[in-house]
Amino acid sequence: MNKVKTLKAKDLLGLKDLSIEEIRLILKTARSMKEVAARPIPKVPTLLGKHIITLFYEASTRTRTSFNMASKILSANITNVAISSSSVSKGENLIDTVKNLEVMGVDALIIRHAMAGAPHLAAKNSRIPIINAGDGFNEHPTQGLLDIFTMQEKKGSLAGKKVLIVGDISHSRVARSNIWGLTKLGAEVTVIGPPTMIPAGIEEMKVKISYNFDREIPDADFIYMLRIQNERQEKGLFPSIEEYSKLYGLNKERINIAKKDVVVMHPGPINRGVEITSEVADGPYNVILDQVTNGVAVRAAILFLLLGGKD
Amino acid sequence: MNKVKTLKAKDLLGLKDLSIEEIRLILKTARSMKEVAARPIPKVPTLLGKHIITLFYEASTRTRTSFNMASKILSANITNVAISSSSVSKGENLIDTVKNLEVMGVDALIIRHAMAGAPHLAAKNSRIPIINAGDGFNEHPTQGLLDIFTMQEKKGSLAGKKVLIVGDISHSRVARSNIWGLTKLGAEVTVIGPPTMIPAGIEEMKVKISYNFDREIPDADFIYMLRIQNERQEKGLFPSIEEYSKLYGLNKERINIAKKDVVVMHPGPINRGVEITSEVADGPYNVILDQVTNGVAVRAAILFLLLGGKD
Amino acid sequence: MNKVKTLKAKDLLGLKDLSIEEIRLILKTARSMKEVAARPIPKVPTLLGKHIITLFYEASTRTRTSFNMASKILSANITNVAISSSSVSKGENLIDTVKNLEVMGVDALIIRHAMAGAPHLAAKNSRIPIINAGDGFNEHPTQGLLDIFTMQEKKGSLAGKKVLIVGDISHSRVARSNIWGLTKLGAEVTVIGPPTMIPAGIEEMKVKISYNFDREIPDADFIYMLRIQNERQEKGLFPSIEEYSKLYGLNKERINIAKKDVVVMHPGPINRGVEITSEVADGPYNVILDQVTNGVAVRAAILFLLLGGKD
Repeated sequence: MNKVKTLKAKDLLGLKDLSIEEIRLILKTARSMKEVAARPIPKVPTLLGKHIITLFYEASTRTRTSFNMASKILSANITNVAISSSSVSKGENLIDTVKNLEVMGVDALIIRHAMAGAPHLAAKNSRIPIINAGDGFNEHPTQGLLDIFTMQEKKGSLAGKKVLIVGDISHSRVARSNIWGLTKLGAEVTVIGPPTMIPAGIEEMKVKISYNFDREIPDADFIYMLRIQNERQEKGLFPSIEEYSKLYGLNKERINIAKKDVVVMHPGPINRGVEITSEVADGPYNVILDQVTNGVAVRAAILFLLLGGKD
Repeated sequence: MNKVKTLKAKDLLGLKDLSIEEIRLILKTARSMKEVAARPIPKVPTLLGKHIITLFYEASTRTRTSFNMASKILSANITNVAISSSSVSKGENLIDTVKNLEVMGVDALIIRHAMAGAPHLAAKNSRIPIINAGDGFNEHPTQGLLDIFTMQEKKGSLAGKKVLIVGDISHSRVARSNIWGLTKLGAEVTVIGPPTMIPAGIEEMKVKISYNFDREIPDADFIYMLRIQNERQEKGLFPSIEEYSKLYGLNKERINIAKKDVVVMHPGPINRGVEITSEVADGPYNVILDQVTNGVAVRAAILFLLLGGKD
Repeated sequence: MNKVKTLKAKDLLGLKDLSIEEIRLILKTARSMKEVAARPIPKVPTLLGKHIITLFYEASTRTRTSFNMASKILSANITNVAISSSSVSKGENLIDTVKNLEVMGVDALIIRHAMAGAPHLAAKNSRIPIINAGDGFNEHPTQGLLDIFTMQEKKGSLAGKKVLIVGDISHSRVARSNIWGLTKLGAEVTVIGPPTMIPAGIEEMKVKISYNFDREIPDADFIYMLRIQNERQEKGLFPSIEEYSKLYGLNKERINIAKKDVVVMHPGPINRGVEITSEVADGPYNVILDQVTNGVAVRAAILFLLLGGKD
């Protein structure tokens, strides 16, 4: 295998665009960053004097905070800019905002936007690194990478491993980033949910489709539960929370038919009692908080690689 | 008296839980911090590399800014997370939020929450220090400590000193923290207000109750005026702002019957002309801005003691 | 000419109050700051340990971010405080807020407020430097200074240069700051717009008035387009966006009758297709992004001069 020392693109827009070697480079760099984060003074001067901005057009506490922690580990300055949709409507367009921040001397932009492709548009129109922190229903690449990092940490190589991704696949950027990355690394991914939540054509992403959660569980190495957005219920995507939980929620009964060493994952925040019961979310097979810890390391690795660090 | 070198608990949840020795340790440490804050470069490297988060479920400018100033004096990183009640409703629960921030590597959380006991819940479910920045009508311990620090600064020992606390005692976490602390240090506290604003059973906190402000003034060493929340008027707690001001507002006439060296206090923000007239709020006997200055020192002391500093 | 080494006032409230020598000192200092900002590590320790607060009563992304970048170049701490109008109504008054922040140890306040004169009120009631980041329709001095810096950078001395300022002059603090500064430096300023947008008495500021954009263009060295606030249309200030654009918008046809080396400016954010077409906003004669870059240098210069730096 060819070893790469840097990322080809100046941006991190999605796992769709990353080569296997690039994914491996990020994961390896993240392992070093995890060591730094565990030191008594978790701080290296690598990005001293660099200015990073989180430009979030959607609310977020955890992703934004995770990027803040990652930036400070590397001694970079970080400023959070939250833009409500109302001010966008009467404000300037995304490209102008990005160009303005670039010429102010900002070194990297971390963008979350309700519109799929927004970070790509920003990337095309700027010379500084753009990091996608979630764009519509398209990708959430740092989430995908931290999930893969966590899977490898628990089980080593993912080649041939069976991963179930369960929930509203159609509206999940987390699912899409995981699918791109996991299939590249040789995992066998099955997406599971009610038919209304499985997008047409998803099989082109080299995943299996199943509507029967119980049938898939016994073979799974990883069960990745997606967050159900209660708000969507009104729109008729599924008849009721209760029915959804019964058919697609992860509970103790379902865990009992899984492998003894199955790994349970969730991108958070958890709807306890909806897609996952508390008993399972807090059980020994869950790695949900490991995912959060690893998120800081993975994001630090990406900032390091994109902002001029060497491997 | 036993001298203590550190706080027993990992958290600062309330003055109810602090021993007299712990209160004295905090006040002593705050005196050192006040010296640091007055230096030309008010910065020591004590908490370099530590990450602190303010997690505020209620709006605040001054308390949050005070904690920011305190953190930066100690060279700690601080990130402000404001959570509107709307996002709480569809978001994760407090315990999950706290656990997530903990595993990201956050070293301490400063929590303000509309629900009494929320920081205690957070403290029980995490290994990192939790600092209560105000929980419902329960406590606001850093406010109580900065008030006591200011009183000592002005008058030395508080044993036997007479303190009037005037206003809506029922809904005041500031009053409760002061009562716990002041009575431990031997002060004689009288709570004053209309009967609708004095909670049943308050005498169990070892305070006197009075409904007649004028009768108590001549003996007072300290008069602590609470902020009246105009919003409550509608709820029938008192007939009108005018009547409240007349009976329980601090004005020049009332100051004239007080001791010459009486000390006037207020937690801010002031409703000028409601609970206190501008003439009194800005008069020579007021220490309201000293309270604010001392707030930074007291909060720095608490961060120092909880985050691994030595006395 | 007398050279000055420092600013006379402790505050920067407007270009109206600055002497020619003070303006020159700021511009000269900004040139040094621009050099610092262009270094690989754009950071000097000049203001280490200083605490700056942006106190914004109106929303802003770009101005606030620009001040953040400027602060970090000088190694100052900066905290952003956004105060919504709702919390102002039930909160304390501006003077109390400013005094509170001052006694917390804040070294400078950057204030944006919908009320003209608010920063002046703050300045009169505090001992720390107050920087006006826009007050109602009065002034936006850092914008005016960055505009003048950019003009000098492109054309050298402004004495005798012809500057057109086009748009809603009545409601533009940007226009007012530019007029004060440009006329002091000897430029010939013409304000242009529909009669409803030109305030009565503006000629006392030593500007020419014109309602005919086309007639003024051929002689202009600089064309400064103001942002049109679409919201105002409803209030009858002009019949329609289309008609406004036709009479007062800058498009390719108008550029064709201008001098070959005319300089096109805009304070941002741009309403593409309203006051300026994209073809012109992105054309070779525009310096709009230079203005943004220079804004960081000018703001760093002001922080440097007000917070104890030497020339």
